[in-house]
Amino acid sequence: MTIGVGIAGLGTVGLGVLKVLQGNGEALAARAQRPEVKVTAVSARDRGKNRGVDISEYHWVDDPVGLVSRDDVDVVVELIGGSVGPAHKLVTSALKAGKHVVTANKALLAHHGAELAKLAEASNVALKFEAAVCGGIPIVKSLREGLIAYEISTIRGILNGTCNYILTEMQATGRSFDVVLEEAQKMGFAESDPVLDIGGGDTAHKLALLASLAFGTLPDLEAVEVQGIEHVTPADIAFADEFGYRIKLLGAARKTDGGIELRVCPTMVRSRTPLGDAASTFNAVEVNAGLAGPFFFQGRGAGEEPTAAAVISDLVDVARGALGPVFGRPITQMKRAVSVPPEAHISSFYLRFQVLDVPGVMASVSQHLTDEGVSIDSMLQRGRSPGEPVSIVMLTHEAPQEAVERAVKAIAGSDKVFENPCMIPMETE
Amino acid sequence: MTIGVGIAGLGTVGLGVLKVLQGNGEALAARAQRPEVKVTAVSARDRGKNRGVDISEYHWVDDPVGLVSRDDVDVVVELIGGSVGPAHKLVTSALKAGKHVVTANKALLAHHGAELAKLAEASNVALKFEAAVCGGIPIVKSLREGLIAYEISTIRGILNGTCNYILTEMQATGRSFDVVLEEAQKMGFAESDPVLDIGGGDTAHKLALLASLAFGTLPDLEAVEVQGIEHVTPADIAFADEFGYRIKLLGAARKTDGGIELRVCPTMVRSRTPLGDAASTFNAVEVNAGLAGPFFFQGRGAGEEPTAAAVISDLVDVARGALGPVFGRPITQMKRAVSVPPEAHISSFYLRFQVLDVPGVMASVSQHLTDEGVSIDSMLQRGRSPGEPVSIVMLTHEAPQEAVERAVKAIAGSDKVFENPCMIPMETE
Repeated sequence: MTIGVGIAGLGTVGLGVLKVLQGNGEALAARAQRPEVKVTAVSARDRGKNRGVDISEYHWVDDPVGLVSRDDVDVVVELIGGSVGPAHKLVTSALKAGKHVVTANKALLAHHGAELAKLAEASNVALKFEAAVCGGIPIVKSLREGLIAYEISTIRGILNGTCNYILTEMQATGRSFDVVLEEAQKMGFAESDPVLDIGGGDTAHKLALLASLAFGTLPDLEAVEVQGIEHVTPADIAFADEFGYRIKLLGAARKTDGGIELRVCPTMVRSRTPLGDAASTFNAVEVNAGLAGPFFFQGRGAGEEPTAAAVISDLVDVARGALGPVFGRPITQMKRAVSVPPEAHISSFYLRFQVLDVPGVMASVSQHLTDEGVSIDSMLQRGRSPGEPVSIVMLTHEAPQEAVERAVKAIAGSDKVFENPCMIPMETE
Repeated sequence: MTIGVGIAGLGTVGLGVLKVLQGNGEALAARAQRPEVKVTAVSARDRGKNRGVDISEYHWVDDPVGLVSRDDVDVVVELIGGSVGPAHKLVTSALKAGKHVVTANKALLAHHGAELAKLAEASNVALKFEAAVCGGIPIVKSLREGLIAYEISTIRGILNGTCNYILTEMQATGRSFDVVLEEAQKMGFAESDPVLDIGGGDTAHKLALLASLAFGTLPDLEAVEVQGIEHVTPADIAFADEFGYRIKLLGAARKTDGGIELRVCPTMVRSRTPLGDAASTFNAVEVNAGLAGPFFFQGRGAGEEPTAAAVISDLVDVARGALGPVFGRPITQMKRAVSVPPEAHISSFYLRFQVLDVPGVMASVSQHLTDEGVSIDSMLQRGRSPGEPVSIVMLTHEAPQEAVERAVKAIAGSDKVFENPCMIPMETE
């Protein structure tokens, strides 16, 4: 039996999928023990656009939802994007009509994953989304199918290639965020509207999905504390280096006694560890599971080829008949996790203050921390400039985020302290 | 429908599988949308042995092949081991009888993979072997299902935890191979008969399977050039370090214009790369696929928990109905690769000679290399000891292995050269 594929969205990823199936459709079908996996129909905004790929052999459908009612479409590939509007409508209709869906849409899944999984599982069809998280790493499959016998305790990842590229370049060159962002945009490593990447929203979408797969809880985007990389400075990157750390935009999900912590923010990660060394546009994911871990995965995060390849892998899974629950467990049995509110997250912190180098300042800073029960692991003050502003950098022992925040706020209130203090959590494991 | 599992072999892995299914059988079955995955029958050598696990609820079968004829066994888990004898007989009978098979037996698959895959595919049953290669890394699944849209060019891995532990300890302590091996045996990181590990045979089995999955060619154990780590010296490890390299027992498969190179041997791998930094008992695999790569995977290689977890993952795949071809493509369509004979492998090499420090020795060594067309990239001679033996270390440019071997042999023939020269290929990418 032939598997007919309908593609909605013919951007670079959609065309990448088309090209792979045009060139290797037969070989890929053989991997599923099927005679054929082929594209039968396509839909996009502009039929006449020159795409450099011949699409005349496919049925053209103006409204993507039109793919759903076609008998020659068994699987809908949704590459429209966005958590609402046409993508949501298409995926909902397809699942209700008993069509399999393969998508790269992390926003859609992070916002509506539970509802869509219910539809898919009720219709006994697949809803696959390998391409939505770290295209170049088969991490969804690994969590959903490969690592199922483990009790996973933490999952931490560098999930956004744009941010990792920017932070790596800032590290390498000492240049500022703004300068490097502009360069990344020119080179095509950052979008012209980069807010979803650099603000951490994209990473949060992916983290919500990974946490669901890892812990068996419903995807819970709202529980993710999100902070972007806009305020990371070359100074902090340089200080981090002196302490043996890199600043990474990390998505971290952690099981604790009080519930699940979900955090996306600039984070100190030890150099000379797999996560700390994952540089440039790479994505990396570390999974801990007691004595068995850590497991580590690294690959290209995004771009046409990895994303299209992930879609293809899902398509062949569907063709092979490898369905199974969308998030690895039956959605009706999954519950929302108790989430730990950000202020209660326990962590060590990197703190930097710009202070006036006068007697008593250090004592005052230390006292505020002591008042909140925050103890200091190490401290760095580079040089002395009596009467001038100097940087004081401190690494704290583990403490609740709220206690550290209160101390930092009190310190910032002093007239001997300039600029906003910098506070970055540390991953010390 | 319940999935009934028959386990042959109740060593630590078999018992690990039992324990996981006893504790989580229902949750795991739910992941396959099945009501139950449960062990129904077991077989091992000694029924009365105290295993610390209650096996009285399972049917006992004296001869493992007896599992095959039981109606309550849908999947046979083969944990007997060995490429011939009972394991081979059991797996063959099971596949012929239309029972699925899950195995951790890399020797069996490396020697008889093609024949067994034919049986499995003819009976339309699964033959899964995630546990056979790097238990803690879902690399078989990733190659068979996840990375299928890529044209893979090389796959390189640290596939044996015992060897990696020994080499890491030698690096860290400067002690000799024999001393570290003895310690590893005491600590349980090396078998009392370690020859399959340290001689490279185990790595060769795994490499043959990975290459088959990566390139779509029949597993070809005989084409693998194998050399173990017995002759690696602390001196070479220290010199490697000076050049920015680690010595690893690497299994490497590479597509070249002349065919496929398959090599297992101590290899210079750059420090500060994911493969070079994979230390201790970790396994690591790097997959290259043009611009899309590299993909990198790291995890615990062996031991009860990762191996049992890999078996569980395969069992749930079978329960989910995720069959598909054993080596990722229909076995009847796979061909034996043209293999590049070891002597024609192209590589840079690390060479160390113990020579008498007298005038003319260096010129003579260099001349022999030049005569074979081997050019030198860098050279190190530590100190001078006129009239005494000193080490000369050279890194060559890329050259055919046979040319370098001829030069080394000629050099070794000189009465100014002591000991056997050391020759180790380098992975410079």
